[in-house]
Amino acid sequence: MRLLVMNANTTAFVTERAAEAARRLASPGTEIVAATGAFGAAIMASRTECAIGEHAAVDLAARHADGIDGVLIAVSYDTGLGALREMLPVPVLGMTEAALLAACTLGGSIGLVSFGARVQPIYRELVARYGLSGRIAAWTNLETTAAYKPGDTSALDADLAEAACALAGQGAEVVVLLGAVMAGASFRIEDRVPVPVLDGIRAGLPMLEALIRMRPLKARTGSYAGLTGRALSGVDPAIARLIG
Amino acid sequence: MRLLVMNANTTAFVTERAAEAARRLASPGTEIVAATGAFGAAIMASRTECAIGEHAAVDLAARHADGIDGVLIAVSYDTGLGALREMLPVPVLGMTEAALLAACTLGGSIGLVSFGARVQPIYRELVARYGLSGRIAAWTNLETTAAYKPGDTSALDADLAEAACALAGQGAEVVVLLGAVMAGASFRIEDRVPVPVLDGIRAGLPMLEALIRMRPLKARTGSYAGLTGRALSGVDPAIARLIG
Amino acid sequence: MRLLVMNANTTAFVTERAAEAARRLASPGTEIVAATGAFGAAIMASRTECAIGEHAAVDLAARHADGIDGVLIAVSYDTGLGALREMLPVPVLGMTEAALLAACTLGGSIGLVSFGARVQPIYRELVARYGLSGRIAAWTNLETTAAYKPGDTSALDADLAEAACALAGQGAEVVVLLGAVMAGASFRIEDRVPVPVLDGIRAGLPMLEALIRMRPLKARTGSYAGLTGRALSGVDPAIARLIG
Amino acid sequence: MRLLVMNANTTAFVTERAAEAARRLASPGTEIVAATGAFGAAIMASRTECAIGEHAAVDLAARHADGIDGVLIAVSYDTGLGALREMLPVPVLGMTEAALLAACTLGGSIGLVSFGARVQPIYRELVARYGLSGRIAAWTNLETTAAYKPGDTSALDADLAEAACALAGQGAEVVVLLGAVMAGASFRIEDRVPVPVLDGIRAGLPMLEALIRMRPLKARTGSYAGLTGRALSGVDPAIARLIG
Amino acid sequence: MRLLVMNANTTAFVTERAAEAARRLASPGTEIVAATGAFGAAIMASRTECAIGEHAAVDLAARHADGIDGVLIAVSYDTGLGALREMLPVPVLGMTEAALLAACTLGGSIGLVSFGARVQPIYRELVARYGLSGRIAAWTNLETTAAYKPGDTSALDADLAEAACALAGQGAEVVVLLGAVMAGASFRIEDRVPVPVLDGIRAGLPMLEALIRMRPLKARTGSYAGLTGRALSGVDPAIARLIG
Amino acid sequence: MRLLVMNANTTAFVTERAAEAARRLASPGTEIVAATGAFGAAIMASRTECAIGEHAAVDLAARHADGIDGVLIAVSYDTGLGALREMLPVPVLGMTEAALLAACTLGGSIGLVSFGARVQPIYRELVARYGLSGRIAAWTNLETTAAYKPGDTSALDADLAEAACALAGQGAEVVVLLGAVMAGASFRIEDRVPVPVLDGIRAGLPMLEALIRMRPLKARTGSYAGLTGRALSGVDPAIARLIG
Repeated sequence: MRLLVMNANTTAFVTERAAEAARRLASPGTEIVAATGAFGAAIMASRTECAIGEHAAVDLAARHADGIDGVLIAVSYDTGLGALREMLPVPVLGMTEAALLAACTLGGSIGLVSFGARVQPIYRELVARYGLSGRIAAWTNLETTAAYKPGDTSALDADLAEAACALAGQGAEVVVLLGAVMAGASFRIEDRVPVPVLDGIRAGLPMLEALIRMRPLKARTGSYAGLTGRALSGVDPAIARLIG
Repeated sequence: MRLLVMNANTTAFVTERAAEAARRLASPGTEIVAATGAFGAAIMASRTECAIGEHAAVDLAARHADGIDGVLIAVSYDTGLGALREMLPVPVLGMTEAALLAACTLGGSIGLVSFGARVQPIYRELVARYGLSGRIAAWTNLETTAAYKPGDTSALDADLAEAACALAGQGAEVVVLLGAVMAGASFRIEDRVPVPVLDGIRAGLPMLEALIRMRPLKARTGSYAGLTGRALSGVDPAIARLIG
Repeated sequence: MRLLVMNANTTAFVTERAAEAARRLASPGTEIVAATGAFGAAIMASRTECAIGEHAAVDLAARHADGIDGVLIAVSYDTGLGALREMLPVPVLGMTEAALLAACTLGGSIGLVSFGARVQPIYRELVARYGLSGRIAAWTNLETTAAYKPGDTSALDADLAEAACALAGQGAEVVVLLGAVMAGASFRIEDRVPVPVLDGIRAGLPMLEALIRMRPLKARTGSYAGLTGRALSGVDPAIARLIG
Repeated sequence: MRLLVMNANTTAFVTERAAEAARRLASPGTEIVAATGAFGAAIMASRTECAIGEHAAVDLAARHADGIDGVLIAVSYDTGLGALREMLPVPVLGMTEAALLAACTLGGSIGLVSFGARVQPIYRELVARYGLSGRIAAWTNLETTAAYKPGDTSALDADLAEAACALAGQGAEVVVLLGAVMAGASFRIEDRVPVPVLDGIRAGLPMLEALIRMRPLKARTGSYAGLTGRALSGVDPAIARLIG
Repeated sequence: MRLLVMNANTTAFVTERAAEAARRLASPGTEIVAATGAFGAAIMASRTECAIGEHAAVDLAARHADGIDGVLIAVSYDTGLGALREMLPVPVLGMTEAALLAACTLGGSIGLVSFGARVQPIYRELVARYGLSGRIAAWTNLETTAAYKPGDTSALDADLAEAACALAGQGAEVVVLLGAVMAGASFRIEDRVPVPVLDGIRAGLPMLEALIRMRPLKARTGSYAGLTGRALSGVDPAIARLIG
Repeated sequence: MRLLVMNANTTAFVTERAAEAARRLASPGTEIVAATGAFGAAIMASRTECAIGEHAAVDLAARHADGIDGVLIAVSYDTGLGALREMLPVPVLGMTEAALLAACTLGGSIGLVSFGARVQPIYRELVARYGLSGRIAAWTNLETTAAYKPGDTSALDADLAEAACALAGQGAEVVVLLGAVMAGASFRIEDRVPVPVLDGIRAGLPMLEALIRMRPLKARTGSYAGLTGRALSGVDPAIARLIG
């Protein structure tokens, strides 16, 4: 299998973090292709940047679509998910979507750790779009950007573990760490938390492989059917080649 | 008042249709500035095109933001709404959002007419995002592009009226015609329908003026607070000027 | 335009407060007709008083219906809303309904300030009836009747601002002050609150004008269609004239 | 036990129908006191008439409250329910509320028969207020006033049975006949219907006795706590005696 | 009437507690038959034990079904409710179901006291299955097994009263004590709580009698219709006799 | 990996059908252990049989738990899911749960094919328990037991394809065939259906492998934490060994 792990932010560091976690989780024989956004935000953390990121995700996927068996969106807003699921003939999975769905199989109610009070409403709306708001026990927020710095993570990890434990105390039976930069971080802290902990890449990579192995056919009707003959201007030719 | 009626599609015909309807509805002294998208779909009718349109809407608004008192999004997917509401210091209203909110004050349950079965799920998700799915009595769909052709509308209007009447028969107490190109069409058919009929510009222009007259302050916290200091690349300088 | 601002309580002081705020918000050329309830509670603050108030609102509207272009219900339980919307041929808006709908366009989630723990459940049910419970981030309650006293409002305003700030801290992206007596109070405190603040008259007056300018037709079927031929006894002749 | 079966319509025929059914269902030793509304609609069938009926219900209950052990509201909109539950020290039950709650124990999903398309939205809102919309499988409507005529009911019963069977075919596992005038009608048709059938008096009378036998204490806080010291004018002295 | 009060736990003490409370609540002439589970958990307090208890409940009911007019399930998870309602020709009521439905008629929002944080999620799911999650104001949990010990209950009662008062402070307008062992405990503490308090037997016994007096017919279609001709092995012959 | 594919029905034919499909879907190196229920229904098709099946599932899992890396419940009611997820230290997945979660990643709204009108409500409640009712576009039902007969499936497949196409016409963007006996049937018909089609084993086997590869830790608190020290009687010693 050849999987595209794509980050529509323009910061390669986050892409690498996600790709590295993905490679550790991949089955033997699975190749991970990593790709970083060509324009837009260094790190999306607002509605405006996510709006630009929707286009950046389409652009990125279109340019890397050849020979890919599936796509894992390594932006925790699952930016571009609906568009890519429509545009591409292969399974597409959002990292947060994957973590939420996997979490549904590990506990009755889910706790979520966000990073930045400003973006928490965006995640809440994302969860609501998946129809899963009723499965959320509690949210907590950490105001830290420590995850974006290389080096020792022990202070960050202590904060993560404390947040996850607090969520368990509020009734969460499984905890998800949001944020692409959290790729793999759940492995570091889970021993300290009394309920299972996931992050988006940890859940997403195996689940994407599973979806591919289900061999679902591409929709031919409905809002996810393949596109042809669309009239577009001012966009990357790769997009026009796919849906024009 | 100076209002931006913006259509992030690249088809000026739709912009003109919306702007024309807006001008007829505007209060004395209100100036309508119309603007058409710079890139992306001729007419958005898919998730992929809407994703590109999110960026096009941000781009368009940023370039026309100076001296504007409010924005009416004249794309019926309300493309870019969250981003613009965050990015700009003035009220921003989506045309479908406006029609739904106004409809809530005219009937207990709403009927919706969409144009194209493929896009109906996108509208359903939009309604759900506004938290208003519970207010919808019924949906109907017309597979027609007649509204995009100039000239006599009598055949189209007969179809619209029939669809609206059918919705009333299914319990809708008010009907909304979706689609930017429907701007003003509700006036043509309402006599034939036993419940009130709205379209997005008919509801949106007066409601935008009302919002401006409420003089709400701009949020300073939360996901709609103004942005500064964001790192962006590869986008129109107007965007960077607003939020960079 | 000629707008009826009606308060089905029997306390003229509240009517005047609302009417005064309404006049400041009205467009040039709009005339405000204020009316106070003929029987029932001095100030409704219980389910029983609201039940009586439903009749008082119908009675009041029927007696003032001639020559009116729209009605703003200046009781924050929106007492009589459904009945008046059915009975009258013109747009009718509840002050709390208006504030909630306007708030939906200013933030993703709304904070609400009620006055009296006893009545908060009544407001919660009202919000649920509008289908908007999912949009509420948090509620807070102030046990004060200070707003009913004339004179200096600085102590009250400090409490209001503190309550609104607390709601913002709990995730509210816009705050609504409930209560007819709060008419205009949001203007006094908004500078101290990091998110937009509305009250029911501030939202309701402009929105009622907007609804009138949409020129919706009166429903001829459904539960809001006009009434004729109803057999009633023991009520004001004005009611019988309208629907008898 | 002494139970008040009260009908806030002014038509004694409906009261008698309900009281007669109630007496057949009552336990030995239970006395049924029947009361008819003093003002308002002959038969409520609109929002306006229900609004007046809210007051009429308060008026009626206040005048008959002495020595009563419980109240069954024999108007199928459960008119006045919230007010009476607050105002009176004894259990109060709405006939439709009772039928819905009992139906919840007989089937997973409920079918409802309404009489008049115009009023069906009012019943839908009532069900939503009880939080039970999710339990409804299907609605059907009969446009008939046959139930208000004395004499042979065989034609009406055939219609009722057909409607109930149709609901069962749509997945209803229990059927409720709405309407005070349907008191006892479920007994006449149930043999012809493959799922249990209830009406509001059949469910309400036994359930009211059950509530009384639970001996619940009256709330001293919250929106159903007893009222004292309220300032009212222009209402029946009995109301003022109870809550003034 | 002859009512089966059945406890599918194997601990007779709890059965006796429930049966004793039931007898005090029963109408004159009602006979209470008490029955204890034949296999499974001493006291169910986990999902695994409840799963075994589903079978134990079916087994118990089948063996005691002869000559019974109705069944009250005296396990607070309402274990076996769906199965028994299908299998038996008489009304079956869960004790928690009954308490929730009765509570709906006493207050707008309900507070629930659970015993053991581990089982609270199971109760939450139960409430959700009844479609009543929206009616719950707050939950509280007591980590105590004091109720299982005979003798003085004053310390336990103080804890119960404190928990109930706390729920009232959080907006509960009626409180339910969960747990079969709480049978009758609400009578002991209600004087100390400002809102009505119920327990499952207090609500369930009168409501079961009421359901029987409604004389509902047994469903002949749907998922609660009677069963015949089912092929089973390895179960008590009484089960096979009922549905084989 | 060693996976237990367990069918708590007593009919080995269905187990074999599911295990055969599972083996075709398994990764290289994955071993499938199949197990059939020891008591209860030949084929569960009622609430009573599912209740017995809850115990049978616990019994079956306890006796086969040694050396297993994960469990796929091959009964389409996901019988025993909560209990097994609590009792066992390894991932447990229900076949219908898996199909629903996978379907969420292939379309916005899901269509479901059930077999037997009597059991459809049970599936509806199952979907509701997963919190996914909002994702369902439509249900259809086939009254056929053809799938339980060996041999040519062409007539059955034509019915399945027709049902799936009808669901797509009602807005389903992905279809799930319910029923353990449908294992692998989606592969046979998908070419004839314009949207993706899944069955529970097709989705469940790969997803179970994915969950195992995520290596989630076992919960130590909450309702899914491991059990010890429980007092049980009259059950298989294997159960007592696991949780006693």
